[in-house]
Amino acid sequence: MRNINENTITPAVLESLADCPDPRLKEVLSALVRHLHDFAREVKLTEAEWMAGIQFLTATGQKCDDKRQEFILLSDTLGLSTLNVALNHAKSSQATEATVFGPFHVADAPQFELGDDISGGAAGEPLFVRATVRGPGGEPVADAVVDVWQADTEGLYDVQRADLASAQGRGVLRTDAEGRLHFRGVMPVAYPIPTDGPVGRMLDVTRRHPWRPAHVHFMIVAPGYETLITHVFSDGDRYLDSDAVFGVRSSLIGDFVRHPPGLAPDGSEQASDFHVLDFDFVLERAGTVGAGNGVR
Amino acid sequence: MRNINENTITPAVLESLADCPDPRLKEVLSALVRHLHDFAREVKLTEAEWMAGIQFLTATGQKCDDKRQEFILLSDTLGLSTLNVALNHAKSSQATEATVFGPFHVADAPQFELGDDISGGAAGEPLFVRATVRGPGGEPVADAVVDVWQADTEGLYDVQRADLASAQGRGVLRTDAEGRLHFRGVMPVAYPIPTDGPVGRMLDVTRRHPWRPAHVHFMIVAPGYETLITHVFSDGDRYLDSDAVFGVRSSLIGDFVRHPPGLAPDGSEQASDFHVLDFDFVLERAGTVGAGNGVR
Repeated sequence: MRNINENTITPAVLESLADCPDPRLKEVLSALVRHLHDFAREVKLTEAEWMAGIQFLTATGQKCDDKRQEFILLSDTLGLSTLNVALNHAKSSQATEATVFGPFHVADAPQFELGDDISGGAAGEPLFVRATVRGPGGEPVADAVVDVWQADTEGLYDVQRADLASAQGRGVLRTDAEGRLHFRGVMPVAYPIPTDGPVGRMLDVTRRHPWRPAHVHFMIVAPGYETLITHVFSDGDRYLDSDAVFGVRSSLIGDFVRHPPGLAPDGSEQASDFHVLDFDFVLERAGTVGAGNGVR
Repeated sequence: MRNINENTITPAVLESLADCPDPRLKEVLSALVRHLHDFAREVKLTEAEWMAGIQFLTATGQKCDDKRQEFILLSDTLGLSTLNVALNHAKSSQATEATVFGPFHVADAPQFELGDDISGGAAGEPLFVRATVRGPGGEPVADAVVDVWQADTEGLYDVQRADLASAQGRGVLRTDAEGRLHFRGVMPVAYPIPTDGPVGRMLDVTRRHPWRPAHVHFMIVAPGYETLITHVFSDGDRYLDSDAVFGVRSSLIGDFVRHPPGLAPDGSEQASDFHVLDFDFVLERAGTVGAGNGVR
């Protein structure tokens, strides 16, 4: 302990965890220390780089508040979020794939009835979503709680607009007895993730673009089933193959069909173009996926 | 890119760095991504653990302000700081070893003359330091800028006391023509690193103690020499073999000799016990150590 060098430091830190009473915590922390040290040794991290890292992480934490989660954005842009989803949601043959949670979910979003307009006045071409939620055997999942959130036609979520007093483009609905879900929102567009923080600077200096292909977020919770956190992406988007957060899955690309002015699925008469998305979600049975299920 | 799994995510993120114009940044970030992903795969990080990590890092950043650096404390307690020092300051035969910077340095500390009392009223038994600063050939280093900082007898640095209006236990001095340095401070004591933040919680749940053996910090800057950032530890301290931040080196343990009341090295008459530390610092020539030299 008194003559530590670049190699003996790692066993010394691991030894300091010897009395950790939680075996899983000990396992995770020990692995974190080993990999962190291996990283520093491999690149021979300089002291300037170490300090830059300290400052970057500090700024990332300080950018977070109740409406901004820069560390999730960092995890997303480094692919850790997608890796974490993949580790905990091995794809079964028929279930809808999960993807990243992202930093823009808000707990306790407004409750809506089926058929309602969740846009809350958000700008954008009308989008009518008609979905079903089913189990792996095709059985409808009634009364599933479906949390939906999306950006407006300028690519901004409501929490990114300081002047908004109420929710826009987010809401909680419940499927009917046949597992059906329908609501009105706005047509999503591709948008850049927030670039006014440390993650934006990282993307800039590495010449990575910040764009995400257009999508709508869904989180579906139903007793007896695994919670599904996913997106539906808009087909044809130019960023489907270079999503800044590595969230796209082929199976999650939906057809947001454009319609000319006329009768909409909700029976209303639309004076301008509108879009219709049909999408079928299939949930896994509870207990059939990774250890991380149901934690959010 | 549309069908990423737990293994293909890593090359996908590395590919996203293909256009990074700074080769060193690309190297460091690529290695970070590989090791971060390897960590998550090895432990099969659950989503609850991922979220706990996000929240821990966020809280760590939010604990930082102009007087508190919780991410340095995290780096210190995970052994990354000591590893970083070891990577950048390979010990030569005669030079004084470097150790961790720690979170309590303050730029622009008060300037003092040789012989001054830097305690600023900090509580503690008097300590008289008599040191020399020499080069590798034994030549005195004149006019070296020596930044000293230390905790008081309650184990607190001035920046940990919200009620203090001026510096205590820190100051900047310059060696004389013979490379000599002398000043008065207070006898350091063992102290716990701050435990009121995320790092303290980590130590608590892993049953690690937060104590550091008594020490005084020195940063010595002189033209033509490598900057030396180090401590001198007090011999006999009970925490020399279990420093919470892995900073102890045998060569950095000094003899803080206790004296009964009487004549002190500065010619003053001391009515109570006092301590005298003699220590000789040896600097490396500039350009002889790792790439990280001189960055702080």
